[in-house]
Formats: sequence, C-alpha cells, structure tokens
Amino acid sequence: MSSTQHSPVNAAPVGVALVGCGYWGPNLIRNFTASRTTRLVGVCDRDQGRLDAVAGLNPAARQFTDFKELLKDPEVEAVAIATPPKTHAPFAAAALRAGKHVLVEKPLCVSSPEGEQLLALAADGNLTLMVDHTYLYSPAVRRIKKLIDSGELGRLHFFDSVRINLGLFQNDVNVLWDLACHDIAIVSHLVDRTPIAVNAHGISHTFSGMEDVAYLTLDYGDNITATFHVNWLSPVKIRQLIVGGHQKSVVFNDLDPNEPIKVYDRGINVSDEPESRHGLLVGYRMGDVWSPHLPREEPLRNMVEHFARCIRTGERPLTDGLSGLNVVRILEAAHRSIRAEGRRIPLNQPVSAAA
Amino acid sequence: MSSTQHSPVNAAPVGVALVGCGYWGPNLIRNFTASRTTRLVGVCDRDQGRLDAVAGLNPAARQFTDFKELLKDPEVEAVAIATPPKTHAPFAAAALRAGKHVLVEKPLCVSSPEGEQLLALAADGNLTLMVDHTYLYSPAVRRIKKLIDSGELGRLHFFDSVRINLGLFQNDVNVLWDLACHDIAIVSHLVDRTPIAVNAHGISHTFSGMEDVAYLTLDYGDNITATFHVNWLSPVKIRQLIVGGHQKSVVFNDLDPNEPIKVYDRGINVSDEPESRHGLLVGYRMGDVWSPHLPREEPLRNMVEHFARCIRTGERPLTDGLSGLNVVRILEAAHRSIRAEGRRIPLNQPVSAAA
Amino acid sequence: MSSTQHSPVNAAPVGVALVGCGYWGPNLIRNFTASRTTRLVGVCDRDQGRLDAVAGLNPAARQFTDFKELLKDPEVEAVAIATPPKTHAPFAAAALRAGKHVLVEKPLCVSSPEGEQLLALAADGNLTLMVDHTYLYSPAVRRIKKLIDSGELGRLHFFDSVRINLGLFQNDVNVLWDLACHDIAIVSHLVDRTPIAVNAHGISHTFSGMEDVAYLTLDYGDNITATFHVNWLSPVKIRQLIVGGHQKSVVFNDLDPNEPIKVYDRGINVSDEPESRHGLLVGYRMGDVWSPHLPREEPLRNMVEHFARCIRTGERPLTDGLSGLNVVRILEAAHRSIRAEGRRIPLNQPVSAAA
Amino acid sequence: MSSTQHSPVNAAPVGVALVGCGYWGPNLIRNFTASRTTRLVGVCDRDQGRLDAVAGLNPAARQFTDFKELLKDPEVEAVAIATPPKTHAPFAAAALRAGKHVLVEKPLCVSSPEGEQLLALAADGNLTLMVDHTYLYSPAVRRIKKLIDSGELGRLHFFDSVRINLGLFQNDVNVLWDLACHDIAIVSHLVDRTPIAVNAHGISHTFSGMEDVAYLTLDYGDNITATFHVNWLSPVKIRQLIVGGHQKSVVFNDLDPNEPIKVYDRGINVSDEPESRHGLLVGYRMGDVWSPHLPREEPLRNMVEHFARCIRTGERPLTDGLSGLNVVRILEAAHRSIRAEGRRIPLNQPVSAAA
Repeated sequence: MSSTQHSPVNAAPVGVALVGCGYWGPNLIRNFTASRTTRLVGVCDRDQGRLDAVAGLNPAARQFTDFKELLKDPEVEAVAIATPPKTHAPFAAAALRAGKHVLVEKPLCVSSPEGEQLLALAADGNLTLMVDHTYLYSPAVRRIKKLIDSGELGRLHFFDSVRINLGLFQNDVNVLWDLACHDIAIVSHLVDRTPIAVNAHGISHTFSGMEDVAYLTLDYGDNITATFHVNWLSPVKIRQLIVGGHQKSVVFNDLDPNEPIKVYDRGINVSDEPESRHGLLVGYRMGDVWSPHLPREEPLRNMVEHFARCIRTGERPLTDGLSGLNVVRILEAAHRSIRAEGRRIPLNQPVSAAA
Repeated sequence: MSSTQHSPVNAAPVGVALVGCGYWGPNLIRNFTASRTTRLVGVCDRDQGRLDAVAGLNPAARQFTDFKELLKDPEVEAVAIATPPKTHAPFAAAALRAGKHVLVEKPLCVSSPEGEQLLALAADGNLTLMVDHTYLYSPAVRRIKKLIDSGELGRLHFFDSVRINLGLFQNDVNVLWDLACHDIAIVSHLVDRTPIAVNAHGISHTFSGMEDVAYLTLDYGDNITATFHVNWLSPVKIRQLIVGGHQKSVVFNDLDPNEPIKVYDRGINVSDEPESRHGLLVGYRMGDVWSPHLPREEPLRNMVEHFARCIRTGERPLTDGLSGLNVVRILEAAHRSIRAEGRRIPLNQPVSAAA
Repeated sequence: MSSTQHSPVNAAPVGVALVGCGYWGPNLIRNFTASRTTRLVGVCDRDQGRLDAVAGLNPAARQFTDFKELLKDPEVEAVAIATPPKTHAPFAAAALRAGKHVLVEKPLCVSSPEGEQLLALAADGNLTLMVDHTYLYSPAVRRIKKLIDSGELGRLHFFDSVRINLGLFQNDVNVLWDLACHDIAIVSHLVDRTPIAVNAHGISHTFSGMEDVAYLTLDYGDNITATFHVNWLSPVKIRQLIVGGHQKSVVFNDLDPNEPIKVYDRGINVSDEPESRHGLLVGYRMGDVWSPHLPREEPLRNMVEHFARCIRTGERPLTDGLSGLNVVRILEAAHRSIRAEGRRIPLNQPVSAAA
Repeated sequence: MSSTQHSPVNAAPVGVALVGCGYWGPNLIRNFTASRTTRLVGVCDRDQGRLDAVAGLNPAARQFTDFKELLKDPEVEAVAIATPPKTHAPFAAAALRAGKHVLVEKPLCVSSPEGEQLLALAADGNLTLMVDHTYLYSPAVRRIKKLIDSGELGRLHFFDSVRINLGLFQNDVNVLWDLACHDIAIVSHLVDRTPIAVNAHGISHTFSGMEDVAYLTLDYGDNITATFHVNWLSPVKIRQLIVGGHQKSVVFNDLDPNEPIKVYDRGINVSDEPESRHGLLVGYRMGDVWSPHLPREEPLRNMVEHFARCIRTGERPLTDGLSGLNVVRILEAAHRSIRAEGRRIPLNQPVSAAA
C-alpha cells in the first residue's frame, strides 16, 4: 500500500452516515466532512442531546434518532459505527442487510461468531466491510512496516509494547479489548500473519471483575513473540513499541511529537562456533540512531479515504473484516488463557491477516 | 531497618577475603577497603593476571590463587564470593565448613537443593550467610519500602518492572537469573512475602538456547501481581519499576540521576454502588507529583556495612540465606513455567522472606 | 486575583466583534462562542475567503468586510483586534472613538506614542482597554505568582527564559516583538514592577534585516535580572522559564504536559562571616522536587472571561492598556540597545505594571 | 587532527609531575598513570594530607611538598598544574624557567600579561606549553568540528550554550572564569578564529561580589554570534550547546549518555526576491534527525596523550598557550563589559586560535 492514496479521479464522494455520537464519533464526523472523498449525509444517535452537541461540526448532515430510518435513506451508501462494542455487530449486520458498506470502530465485534456472520453478510452483498484499526493508517506504523519489509531490521527478534495510563474505564469491555486491540492489529500487520498461540494474564481491581491490568503474549512462530502490557491504573502514560531486529531495532514512542520513531543501528553478533572454550561468544554492535521525519498526516483521515477508495474501486481494505475478526479471535483466546491461569491457548485456524 | 546502620561502637573491623576478581569483584574490593567496618585481608582468583589488575585497589590485601589456602588464613573471618553463579554454592559451602561467614553475589546459587545445603551449613556453624541483593540497600528502594509500610500508597494494585538493555550476555545463566533476580528480591522485600505462583515466558535467539528475552509474572496473592520484563536484546536501556497503589503510585526510574523516585497522588475512585444504571462508575483523581530527595549513599557500601554489623551482632541479615533461596526457588519455577509453555507453577511452600 | 473569576451573576453577555481572522482569530472566535460571558456578534476581515473559512465556528455571527460598518452595529459593545501588529493602534483607536471596549492581541501596538494615545482615548471614554498577554491567565503562571507572593521562594535571584523554535517568521515584527513580548509580560507580572534598564542583542539572517535570534536582559533592580533567549532558527523547540529564588526555585516547562511546573527545594547557604580563612563559605541544600497539579483551564478562556467581567464591573484588567504600553516601551528600548551595540538603555519613567 | 593520536612508536613515556591534588588533580593522576605515553614521576601539594589521600592512585610516584624540589628532579620532563587559577602563572613560569614542559588546567592564568609572559618563556625555552581545555579532546566536540568543516551544516547562524547548575562556588574566580571558559574554547575552536567583540552581563548574590549568574555574547564576525549562559544558582543542571547552521543544525547535550549529539536536517528557505507583495517569503524545511554513534573515549586521556605527543614530536598543541591566552583576553574583556553595564568591548588584536 502506498503512503498516499486517493480515490479514483472524478469518483463521486461516498455518502456516509454515522451512528454513535459519543467519545469517538465527532472525530469521524470531522474527517468525513473534511475529506473530498466522502460526504456526510446523516448522523444518528438515540440521544437527541448528543446530536445537537455535534450539529455544528457538519450542519448539513441530517439527524436521525432511529437507525432504521437512516438505513432507508438512499443517499446513505455507507454506515460508520461508533457505538459501544457490544452493539457493533447488530448495527453492522442491519446495515449490511440494507445493502450499505460498513466501517466499524475497533473492535469489529465482541465474539467470533458475530464476526463470521458479518463477513458472510458482506461477502453475500459484495459490500465493503472495514474495521477502524486507525494505527495502521498512521505515518509511524507505515514507516515501520517499510523498514521491516525492506529487510533493514534483519530477522525479527521480538515486539514489546507498553500502552498504559490512568485511563477511561470502559463499561462493556476490559483493558485488553480496549487497548491491546491496537497492538494486536499493529503487530499482525507488521509481520503479515496471525499468531499461532496466546498466553495472557490479567487482574481486576474493581467490583466489575473486568481486567484493568493485563499482559498478553503472542507467539507468531519462527521464534518471534510479541508481548503487550495494557493498563488503566498506571500513574504515568506510556505508549511505546519496541521492534527488536537482528540488524537494527526500532522504538516507536507515540507520545514524542518530535521523534516518534527511532531506528537503532545496534545488535548482537553471535560467533559462528556454537560454543567456544569460554562459552558462547556474543559481541555487541553500537551504531548511529536515526529518526526519520514523518509526514504530518492524520491517521483517521487516511483511514477514511482508504474506506472511500475501497468502496469505489472494490479494493480489499487493509483492515478488512477478516483482519478485524482475527483480532477478535485473539482477544477471545486471551480471555480463555486468563481463565486458565495463563495457559497457552493455540489458535487452531491461523488465517492470514493479509491473505 | 533504619536507613543508616553502623557496627557497634569499638567493634573491630571484620577481616574479609574476596574470591573472584572479574566484573563485579573490584566494586567489592573498593567498598571493603573504604569502609571502617571491614578490613580486606585477602583477594583470590585462579588467574594471576586478574589479581595483578586489581592489586592497586588495595595493595595491603594478600593474593591467593588457591581458595583452600585462603580458607586457612585465620585473619579471614568472612568470605565474599563474586565468581560465576554455578560456582557460588561450592565456594560458599567450603567457606562455611571452614567456619567463615559468607557473602554471596546474587544469585545465591543455581538450584534450591544447593541453597538448602548452604542454609543448613550456616545454621550448624552459627554463621552469617548473606546474599548481595544490592538494590535492597539503595536509598530508592528503602524509600519506597517506607512509603508502602506507612500506608501512604493505600492497598497495592500491581508492580511492573522493565529491566532491559543491549546487555552483557552471561555464559552460564539466562536473562531471568541475571536480571529478574533483582526484581524478585525487590518486590518480595517491598511486600514482605513470597509469591504463591509463577508464570513465565522466554525466548532465545542464540545457539545457546538460553533465554535472552523473558517475562515473569508473580502472583503475590490478595490481588497483587508483579510482572517483570527482562531483555538482553533491547536497543534502549530502561530500568523502571511502577508500584501501583490505590491511593498513590510510585515510579522508580533508576536511570534518572535527578528524580529517581516520583510519587503520584493519583488514582481511581470506584463508586459504592457496584453497578449503576450506566454501568460501573469509575472516576479519576489527578494530584501533585512529588520527588523526595534521596541521600547520596552507595548501596554496595550500605550492604557491606550491614554484613559486618550482622557478623558482629548476630543480627539476621535483611538479605539472608533464606531470602536468597526464595529467589532461587522462584527462578526454578519460572524455568519450569517456560518449559510448560507459560503454565502457572504454584510455589508450594511459601516461606516468608522476612520471617 | 483569584484563580476563577466569573462575571457578576445575571450580567448579560458582552456583545463582542472580532477583527482579523488569520492565525489567531479562530481561537478567539471559539472562546467568545463557548463562554457564557460573551456573545460573538460579528466577525470582520477584508478578505471574504477568511470570513468564509471561519463561518462554521459561529454561524450566528454577522460577517463584515468593512470595519466602519462593524463599528456602527449597536450590538457590538466590545471589539477584539487580532490583525497584524502595525494595524493594532488604528483599529483600536477607531473602536475606542466609537465608544467600544477594546481587547488587543499582543503587542498592544508598535510604538509608545500610539500606546499613549490609546490609553488616553480609553480614559476619556471610560472604556476598558485590555491587551491579550495570554500567559498571565494560564494556570501555570498563576501558580508561580502565588509561590512568589507567598514568600515560599524567598528573595528572588534571577529569571531565565528560553523561547525558541524553528518558527513562523513574522513580516512586520522581529523575534523580540513576537516572542520576548510574552516573557516581558510574564516576568513584570511576577515581580509586580517594570524594569529600570534594558540590554539587548540580536542578529538577522535574512534580507529583511529583522532579528531572528535575540537576547534581552532586563534589570528589575534589587539585584534581580531577567534574561530571555528568543529564536526563530532553533532546530529544537524549548519553552522554559527558570525562576531562581533564595529558598526555592521553579522551572516552568510549557511543553511538558504532565509536570509543567517543578518546585525545587534547593539553594545555597552563605556563611555569616563575609570571608573565612579559606575564602567564602558557600554550602548547598538539595531537597525534594514537587510538581503541583494544575487545573486544566484554557488560558484564553480565562482571559476572555476576565475581559467580560472588567467591562461589566469597571474593574481594572490585569493586563490593562498601561501594562501593554510598558511592554511596548521595553521593546522600544531593546531596539535602541541593539542599535547601540548592546549598550544599557535606562527606562526613565518606570511605571508600575500593577499600579 | 585525527581522532586517534599516539606518540611515535618506541618513544619513551614522558616523565610528568603533578602539582595540586585537590578536586581535579586525581583525574590527571589516573590518566597519567593509565596512559603508556606518560609516566607519573612525582606528585606535589603543600598539604601532606592531600598527598596521602591520592597515594593509592599511583604508589610509585614520589611525593613533594616543596615545588622547588620537584623542579630539581631530572626525571621530571613536564609539569602539570592543577592548583587554584591565581597560582597557575607563578607555577607555570617557574616550571618553564626550569626547562620543563607545562600543562596548565584551564584557565591558563588570570591576566593576559601573565599569559604573554608564559608564552614568551615557552618560546624562549623551545618548550611545550599547553592548557587543558578538555572539551576539545572529547568525541562530541571532535564530531561537531568535522560536521562544520565538511560544510554539512552550511553557513553558520549562531551558537547558544547553557551551562548551568547548582554549582561549586569557586573562591578566586567568578562563574565566567569557571564555566564560560569552556564555551569560549569550544566555539573558538569550532569556528577557527577569535571573536571581534564581547558583551557581558553578570550579577552576584553573595558577599563576595563575584558573579554567580552571567551571560556572555561573542561576535565572531560574518553575522555569527555565540551566547553563553553560565550559572551557579540554577536548580537544574543543563549542559547544552546549539549550533545553528543554514543547512543543518546540531544540538550537543553533554548530559545525555545515549544521544549526546543530534543533527537536525532542518532550516529555513528564504525566497530569492528580497521582498514579495506579501512581505518576506520564508519557508521551513523539516527533515530527519540523526545521532551519530561516538566512540567511548575519555577526553582527559586524549588530552594527556596529545600533550605527550607534542612534547616528543614538537608538534604545536591544539590547545597551546596562545589559545589559552585568547580565552583569558576574552574573559578580561567580559569583565570590562560587565563593569561598563554591558557595553560592547572590541577585541583589538584578534589573533587566530589556530594560527
């Protein structure tokens, strides 16, 4: 995928309607409004107060409190869903049945049967089904992907992500569904495959029983593992991904506005002789650090335009329904691992995220 | 334990001999020499070149290439062991049998049967057996211990430690024995007990098969877990411990020379009603950040003087043989968990580190 | 001044019109719109394109391309001026003559005679004249002011500010008028007086001859000096003010979202004996570092509401015309100092910023 | 000068004696001892206690409490002087008169007549006279010099240095002689010339009247200025030099152990037309940031070996007496500028630091 993509010349903007005007909805409204590839036709929320609150962002969009009415609007070609996770699948299914293309906020849904049904509905209707794993449209992740694909990092050793802060507790999902969701999507994209097994740990410190501190380890095979620490109780905010490679390594600090990505020309040199008289010979290489300049693009804008382009061209989205379903399957396996005291849960049907 | 401890007034300095003049030995020589509570009588290494290299640090100390000769020296009251981990137990056992008090570099030994034998020998001879878990003698860990014991942090939620760098590969131990060793000792000291179970993951990227990237999760009961990320392949060096408490939290950054400890007056407020109409009510408290000034003391000096004091007074060391053995048992369990694909390994005989 | 101020209960919102819809104007529109103490009646720019670009921010505001027409509108009680600096005085004078209260973006104007005229017009008409030195309404500066006024810092030693970045070159003012302007207002407010003399240095690296790198030193008497480094060519962005006090010192890092203010309990202890045998005895005190939590308030919102309150109550603005004029006088003196190769320029008529 | 220099093969080590065993002396003892190019013959201090304190660093060196005795020792080929600044000239003159090569800690001396006399004595005796401006032997400054000389930074715009901390008050010199001394030497070396004029400001907050906060601006001609902020009262320690160039800029943070030098591929683009309809057209270029890996060399070791090499080969030292004298002349001019309220003081006889 190239770093800049536009819809085909002269393609008419895609008529989009948004359902869900809470925390994230306004960001979608802003981008659907600003992009020339989309036209915001309608906005839907059962709470009229919320509709009023966002009206200024796009006064031309029609207001709906009834989702069914919205689906009847022939100008609505596509529906974007930014409601609580548990309602993603019902809204998406209804929209697909009504012949609309669908964009769903992450996670795609909260169970794999739901996800499988959505994929089937999209396939049946020949409709675009896409999930908003926004990070995959960020200049930083795009750059890291290039570095990996070019071979510059060498064989991959490990991924480690820390995504912690004193955070917005969610009511219907735990910290894995809320935060690790991003890391699963990012790393699966970077290595271009799905993991073969999952271990997870998590604890809850509230009445809800929902985990607020959790660790997830994914085995991607070939001696590559990825571990994610996600946490709603941390006094400090950290957003850091380390990609350890044999030749070079990358650190992505999403909170550093100046040098978000640093490439370290460092690594180990293992002697050819498996074992010398004095044991294993391991040497170190310390080299330059390089922080590539990244274009100032809003990931959400890139995502919105990719959605419009896929609808107009029939191209398969980078974050299609299947990649969203794979994330859901991993989160389900993580849940089982937590219940089984951290036991390894194989993912029996590895399906390529990019296939 | 008070923050400053001195040997009893007028107590004669303890005659100490050091065995092992490699990486860490010189630091011990320097501190045994500088402290008035100890007198460095002898230095032992089978490699005469190493003995010559450290001779300038204490020209008065006798040189030994034969450990048995050293043990015969009546001025040697105590032996400090800074040799490779696998040789700790044999050296320590010989010294104890010769009636010497013993200080062992971490880890105490490389198997729990070895450790049990050492404890028995020390008990039989009424000798001081101490392991150098240096961090417990640092101003930073002492301050965090005070903060926890005073109740200022409230109920503890979690510990998270990251101890990673492009590091010195060890030839006879993996990254857990090398680095996680510190974190186990620190957290077990801070919570004043040993964990009830262990989960671990680790991978190796060299011929040796020894893990160079690993994660360890300790269940301390009462909903307190501690997770440690240790890594010899990281392009960046991080030494950070987060102590999450219900009232306040602490972040200890061992690489920050100016503000190593920060206390965050932040946390969550959970509503009394287990579940409200809109789901769980969780609020946030954001308050001041405070970095207490710490005295500029060298942890190793504190440790050395504590060792001398324990010998002279018969006091039980903070890091006695039992606490060293407990760390070894946890590392053994971690090894079993890695071999069992991350399965939880209960620690059947929890024994108090501080009992 | 208390940290939160509201207009008197039941006071009608002040009808405000804005002239100048370029870089800063939209921020004022947003705040006039959001605050209940003001009502944005009109927006003026000679460029219709700019008016259209900001129309969405407040669709109810009338559009004007002719400033004279705006002044005729009886609903306009006050005019806010966000045009280029050289046009501040003519717009402000016309508005005051038309009986409107006036808020001017910093700097108040570009010459002291202009400023004196504006003060006279405001006094004659009994009108509020205020300049937007926004920083004085920020939680950070308010907190530092409290720390100084409480005596907690002790006798003040020095101020040092660094305000540098690769920046927006201005066409009609140099880097001192653009950036040092903030520091002069902040420090004069913090010490509650105007400086007695100025030294300045500056160089230009473009055809324009306008300084893009400059240093300004203000002598506030009583052995207190303030030095400001302002720079449009720096590869890195720094916004840091050090307030050195005898008891404690403060560092304000405006780019640190987490701990913008740090209070250091550190300083020197000078021996009572003026000179000892071994020379001056100066000792050091190293203590805790404390970062007070600051309320999340937008300074511009506070400023807008202070403006409305002053209009309704007749209260003298914190950043009244006189304080704006004093900043202009200092900038003029700085200009003379640069032309005189850095010579000290006395400010003959020190007038209290707070009188 | 190449980055690694060794004395000629087979050259005998230079016999060196050190006078002054206070704060800095032990560092010199350590390096004279460790290098193969020098042999520490003697150590001199009038205080026997100090001699005893450093004896362990090189037990072979003879102890002197009488400098005259030391000068009589025929094994002493060179004398290193690490006494208080005011005594540098008398010790150096006596040593040169006794036919010894001389290394003086910075500053060379405390007045230019003193310095001129030392240069004459060295020339008369055909002796090496060198001043220890240590930074010029650091990998960081060497790398910046290369970047400038290669033309990679383009035309130089400005230098800005901040060298502040809560510091060791000196008894016989002010903060300029103590700290700005380094910056003058560094920048004069980097631009390969001496400044044409000086402006300075400084204040004292103790009975001594010696400045503890000061700013120094050097005009190097060709529109290049360098400004240094030096401060003994700052609550925070900063060691940062910005080198602003037209093509690229460098930031040297001496406190960052990981990335001390960062090269920013950033700058401004000025339109060819001196003034367009809309004023000056200035654009910005934002590019990559690059931190070159630096060798881990101790600057003091490099300096010591350069001294030995110059003695053996007759090569002119990088930091010869003249460059030391030029620093003293600039500091004297700075003193006059402070007394003249910041007035510009021309340096009438610019003499090349590198001639």
